[in-house]
Amino acid sequence: MRAKFNAILSVIHPVDQSLAQAAQAHLDNLTKPRGSLGRLEDLALQLCLIQGGQSPKADPARVYTIAGDHGVVEEGVSPFPQEVTRQMVLNFLNGGAGINVLAKTAGADLYVVDAGSKGPDFDEHPKLIRGKVAEGTANLAKGPAMSMDQCLRALLLGVELADRAQAEGVRVLGTGDMGIGNTTPSTALYCAYLGLPPEAMTGPGAGLNKEAVVRKAEVIKRGLAVNAAAVATGEALEILAALGGLEIACLAGLILGGAKNRQLVCVDGFISTAALVAAWKLCPAVADYVVLSHASAEPGHRLATQTLGLKPLLDLGLRLGEGTGAAVAMFLVRSAAAIYNDMATFAQAGVSTDA
Amino acid sequence: MRAKFNAILSVIHPVDQSLAQAAQAHLDNLTKPRGSLGRLEDLALQLCLIQGGQSPKADPARVYTIAGDHGVVEEGVSPFPQEVTRQMVLNFLNGGAGINVLAKTAGADLYVVDAGSKGPDFDEHPKLIRGKVAEGTANLAKGPAMSMDQCLRALLLGVELADRAQAEGVRVLGTGDMGIGNTTPSTALYCAYLGLPPEAMTGPGAGLNKEAVVRKAEVIKRGLAVNAAAVATGEALEILAALGGLEIACLAGLILGGAKNRQLVCVDGFISTAALVAAWKLCPAVADYVVLSHASAEPGHRLATQTLGLKPLLDLGLRLGEGTGAAVAMFLVRSAAAIYNDMATFAQAGVSTDA
Repeated sequence: MRAKFNAILSVIHPVDQSLAQAAQAHLDNLTKPRGSLGRLEDLALQLCLIQGGQSPKADPARVYTIAGDHGVVEEGVSPFPQEVTRQMVLNFLNGGAGINVLAKTAGADLYVVDAGSKGPDFDEHPKLIRGKVAEGTANLAKGPAMSMDQCLRALLLGVELADRAQAEGVRVLGTGDMGIGNTTPSTALYCAYLGLPPEAMTGPGAGLNKEAVVRKAEVIKRGLAVNAAAVATGEALEILAALGGLEIACLAGLILGGAKNRQLVCVDGFISTAALVAAWKLCPAVADYVVLSHASAEPGHRLATQTLGLKPLLDLGLRLGEGTGAAVAMFLVRSAAAIYNDMATFAQAGVSTDA
Repeated sequence: MRAKFNAILSVIHPVDQSLAQAAQAHLDNLTKPRGSLGRLEDLALQLCLIQGGQSPKADPARVYTIAGDHGVVEEGVSPFPQEVTRQMVLNFLNGGAGINVLAKTAGADLYVVDAGSKGPDFDEHPKLIRGKVAEGTANLAKGPAMSMDQCLRALLLGVELADRAQAEGVRVLGTGDMGIGNTTPSTALYCAYLGLPPEAMTGPGAGLNKEAVVRKAEVIKRGLAVNAAAVATGEALEILAALGGLEIACLAGLILGGAKNRQLVCVDGFISTAALVAAWKLCPAVADYVVLSHASAEPGHRLATQTLGLKPLLDLGLRLGEGTGAAVAMFLVRSAAAIYNDMATFAQAGVSTDA
């Protein structure tokens, strides 16, 4: 399984920067002052490079909302009970959650993935992918959250999601998460991968009060201590298995798979960005294929994205997860592609330039 | 004409804040942690209050892109020649400009308005509103840009645009501008209305170099000096006539008309925000009906919005005008309304709360 995974990493390559000049020249020739559409132009250029040249396509777009449970919730790191993960999967399948509404409004398709929720398999549903690797992780404050085997299976499930989308023509992917307690493993991953301090990185998640945030930071510190040997290896896979989650590993696989398939991946907020860090550590070339959708209101996200040198597209105070920020960002990607493909040039429109 | 205008101001009222509690309770009851959809929830609440209660509607949405020319271009304040205003109106009518592409992607209707471009009337076109008040303004560096009569006619034209949209069921308006040189009057208005220094407020507009920006600031200082008597009155109308533009006054009228009609107005960037300041000074209650769509890359915009205490929804480095940022913001308004109307409550979805 590790050989299969390594084979995937070996076929992820950076985009061909030699295409940038022609794409930029086209953007500069459209009827607007140069660069005046800001990050929409950057997005158009990125999409061109990812897709290998002209006429970037933003559709079809698909969000995968991936669920997993976390043994660490027994430490009291979330104000919501663990059964909410399962309840929310059903809410996704019934169309009533934030991601349903926002993906629909953004014109994106939505699939729900059970990568590792507690409880038995869900009934079949046309929008559900049943890939349960385990019924949640072990408590990371007491030992490794996952075995290496579980971690690799979750990663490969994520790659498979990207491949399935690719086979169906999907050009843009969105990452979404659902897992009560999953800001805790995400925070631990940021700390382990980026050397950031747990005190600064730990926040309220779905709504802890101040004292509970202090306790949550202690749990994360214990997790880092008990898994110190894995962290000390500096190996991205070892760290992901020790401190991650099944949905987080699956999200990392989705990002890697998207890069392999030359799909743009709209990375959602705090949880998805932790998965991005794992994917990036596993294969730095994924950076060319991702865009950070939004700045999460979870306070550690700002420090993490600054450390990564990435600027999120949106800053709307979102902290829901599920892929909600990614869905909104997909609309910006569509806008960017439309600018590139549909605006008139100065010559076509008979408009004088500033030259 | 002034009596007619004052009659409009007198029927603009703040929203009914007593509706806020029920609307907020509904938002808090949806399947998400409280407030976790951030500014999208704020927008949903604002739309509810504007529309008088439940089930906010974001559609139909319409952008008006309003054109005017400026006598002050003879001072060399723009890198583009003045005929570009007219050329761009034709580009709008032919569907090739940034606003065409972005309004279409955002599902908003677009009308182009000639409030005061140089040259003869344009030929009739189903998407053009011919309202030319004058063939551009006078040079504000040498005297008042407009007569009071012209200013009032442009304002009333803007109100008429809002009324026409209202008659056709439009719920959300977007403000757009086209006018070579129009960052100069806009900057002068910010300085006069908000007491901001021309040096700090003057920027490159469509692409001036550093030396030209210094010269542009000198032009604005001369404009403020030569119109000092009008500025000293502190009268919003006097200041708008002296330092504004025909499209800017028309935009101010559109904002006032939207507030009168209880339409949400998505205010675009640097030019439109100057029009908002004028409208606000004329009638503070308009504040309840507007949202700042985006932070313009024109540097003075940040200082102006901070002074106003307003936080733009988007920060994408846009500096094109035309209503492009407003069009993108309309998608966010639609997303906000969809959250309010289409998400399941905890009870409906059988999801446990954190209570």
